[in-house]
Amino acid sequence: VSNEDCFGTVIKCKAAVAWEPNKPLVIEEIEVAPPQANEIRIKMVATGVCHTDLYHLFEGMHEGGFPVVLGHEGAGIVESVGPGVTEYQTVFAGNTVIPLFLSQCKECRFCKNPKSNHCEKGWIADRQGEMSPAESRFTCKGKKLLQFVGTSTFSEYTVVNQMAVAKIDPAAPLDKVCLLGCGICTGFGAAVNVAQVEPGSTCAVFGLGAVGLAAVMGCHFAGAKKIIAVDINPEKFEMAKVFGATDFVNPKDRSKPISEVIAEMTNGGVDFSLECVGSVGVMRSALESCVKGWGVSVIVGWTDLCDFAARPIQLIAGRTWKGALFGGFKSRDGVPQMVQSYMDKKVKLDEFITHNMPLAQVNDAIELMKNGKWYIYILYVYIIEDLQTELYKDKH
Amino acid sequence: VSNEDCFGTVIKCKAAVAWEPNKPLVIEEIEVAPPQANEIRIKMVATGVCHTDLYHLFEGMHEGGFPVVLGHEGAGIVESVGPGVTEYQTVFAGNTVIPLFLSQCKECRFCKNPKSNHCEKGWIADRQGEMSPAESRFTCKGKKLLQFVGTSTFSEYTVVNQMAVAKIDPAAPLDKVCLLGCGICTGFGAAVNVAQVEPGSTCAVFGLGAVGLAAVMGCHFAGAKKIIAVDINPEKFEMAKVFGATDFVNPKDRSKPISEVIAEMTNGGVDFSLECVGSVGVMRSALESCVKGWGVSVIVGWTDLCDFAARPIQLIAGRTWKGALFGGFKSRDGVPQMVQSYMDKKVKLDEFITHNMPLAQVNDAIELMKNGKWYIYILYVYIIEDLQTELYKDKH
Repeated sequence: VSNEDCFGTVIKCKAAVAWEPNKPLVIEEIEVAPPQANEIRIKMVATGVCHTDLYHLFEGMHEGGFPVVLGHEGAGIVESVGPGVTEYQTVFAGNTVIPLFLSQCKECRFCKNPKSNHCEKGWIADRQGEMSPAESRFTCKGKKLLQFVGTSTFSEYTVVNQMAVAKIDPAAPLDKVCLLGCGICTGFGAAVNVAQVEPGSTCAVFGLGAVGLAAVMGCHFAGAKKIIAVDINPEKFEMAKVFGATDFVNPKDRSKPISEVIAEMTNGGVDFSLECVGSVGVMRSALESCVKGWGVSVIVGWTDLCDFAARPIQLIAGRTWKGALFGGFKSRDGVPQMVQSYMDKKVKLDEFITHNMPLAQVNDAIELMKNGKWYIYILYVYIIEDLQTELYKDKH
Repeated sequence: VSNEDCFGTVIKCKAAVAWEPNKPLVIEEIEVAPPQANEIRIKMVATGVCHTDLYHLFEGMHEGGFPVVLGHEGAGIVESVGPGVTEYQTVFAGNTVIPLFLSQCKECRFCKNPKSNHCEKGWIADRQGEMSPAESRFTCKGKKLLQFVGTSTFSEYTVVNQMAVAKIDPAAPLDKVCLLGCGICTGFGAAVNVAQVEPGSTCAVFGLGAVGLAAVMGCHFAGAKKIIAVDINPEKFEMAKVFGATDFVNPKDRSKPISEVIAEMTNGGVDFSLECVGSVGVMRSALESCVKGWGVSVIVGWTDLCDFAARPIQLIAGRTWKGALFGGFKSRDGVPQMVQSYMDKKVKLDEFITHNMPLAQVNDAIELMKNGKWYIYILYVYIIEDLQTELYKDKH
């Protein structure tokens, strides 16, 4: 804090503040302090709204979680950097970046192990003071605002630790690649990195929200020959086809357990299944839909309210149960690669976008998501702050 | 049955018959029909007693499971073969063999897939009549006796499908290598084949019965640097050290959850854990004892009475939950290799043996196992039929 004056000025800008749980966000003028050592201040250009934002606002109301600036799926332009940043990685003012809820310090034992993307530094390591939820650069009306999962993209400006920033291709359209900050990498990577879907294999994806559709895209990218999309909303299938789904199953149309339906379609079960709902019942069904011997099921959806379960024979019969955070991508390495894949037209992003809105309409966006939940055809809601469009255009 | 007279004579011999659940076995004179097409009649030399035998006798009393000849962990000498056997594999009268509860047909999609050992033929495919429980070559007092998991080694002679027979090194001592018919391969392979324990890694093995000790041996064989043996009987630790354990934890001596104890011993959890008890509570504890990011937990113990469970975050944090039957070994390929490893002194077998008894004492053996359960220092109980020792000696 003592260094504040040395490295820049406080910026006043607009942000959507969640003052308390279960209430609409309020567009406020906030103060964003300059980046301190190893921090980067970013002018946000675009952000998605993700169910994890809503989870915090409506379900995960732990003590100390408010007031907070939500949002964690954004893209923007570096406004300024704190001391030490340019030695750490070549990020300068003007670079286009994606802030990351999952850091990659490249120094801890998790970063050094090729099997894992669970960096043990960053905001998760609360006591280390690395842009943790308790350590924020935001104030409003004399009160400190918390940052959300080290990011807070529902603000015109935010400050992020350098371990949690991916520098990307300056030609990438920020209002598309911002989606790579969470949901699309989560689903796509779960298929490609975690399940490690193989060419010619059979797959089932449960739940066709943005994460599930990205998982379908991942299965297709990996060369699966049969991709069964499972959702209780039949309207989703047309969209799933766009991403590579070959078959559709609506549990509402079936009287028998969905695992039996899938077993009949695939000679005993799929090689790979992905749960993209966050329901422990669906997690069980996804495991049971795998073929014995070598079937792999990946839990992608999030819930921490109850246990998932199955009979031991399901695993003893040769199945594997895995899980993934951020699709197994090491964040600073993986996100720029995914941006490149999008630029090379190997992965789709535009097709996920259903709405574009200014920041002022953030509550409308949240209502669309909230009422829609995972089975309605609202995939992603965009907030593009008008004031920032000018700077964004300058870059292209 | 109509071919009986063409390919040999009925043999009368002694066997331990389980006439009904929860009763002592009865040593009876039984008739063993000649091998039919693709079948092999074996003169048993030695057999272990495994908890799975007891599970059938005392817990898994499903309809149609009695009268039965139990035992599935034996070794013996081929007495005669049915038509087709010599074309299928080079097994002749006089060869030493281990009968297998898990077949390996080498033709089905599971046998052809290197990831799986779950042959879909054999006794498990009940309707195919391949030496299924319903198809037996045993009779006694005019009644048909069932065979147990395609083997039935508690008999002086048994008949097994050729898909379920491993031909082994004629120099191997049958009263030792019989253990490779079930428990030792199950534990050893779970570590080496399924968990794929890595050199320099940390491991935890829960439950130090024969399977757990074999898992310890597998971790040691694979080069683990720290092997934590977990059991509520401290006497087991001396034995576990013989097989390579480096540390011992007795949950009875600890007030905190065992996963926390292990996390403290290993900087956040072990790389690999193996559950060798068959308790869903221990399965959960074994998973939670793994390090986030890359920890792998394997369910080796058997129970089908209730669900195993955990919080989704345990997998989302990067852990993998697997299971294994017969340690992931393709049976006819793997067992002869394990026999060779024993002959080459790369794996231990002699140290598992606690008692040698004749068939007449089978009920004493069962009582030792039953009262001991998994935490008492009775690991394996041998039954060596005196009458067969002579033939066995001839072979050496």
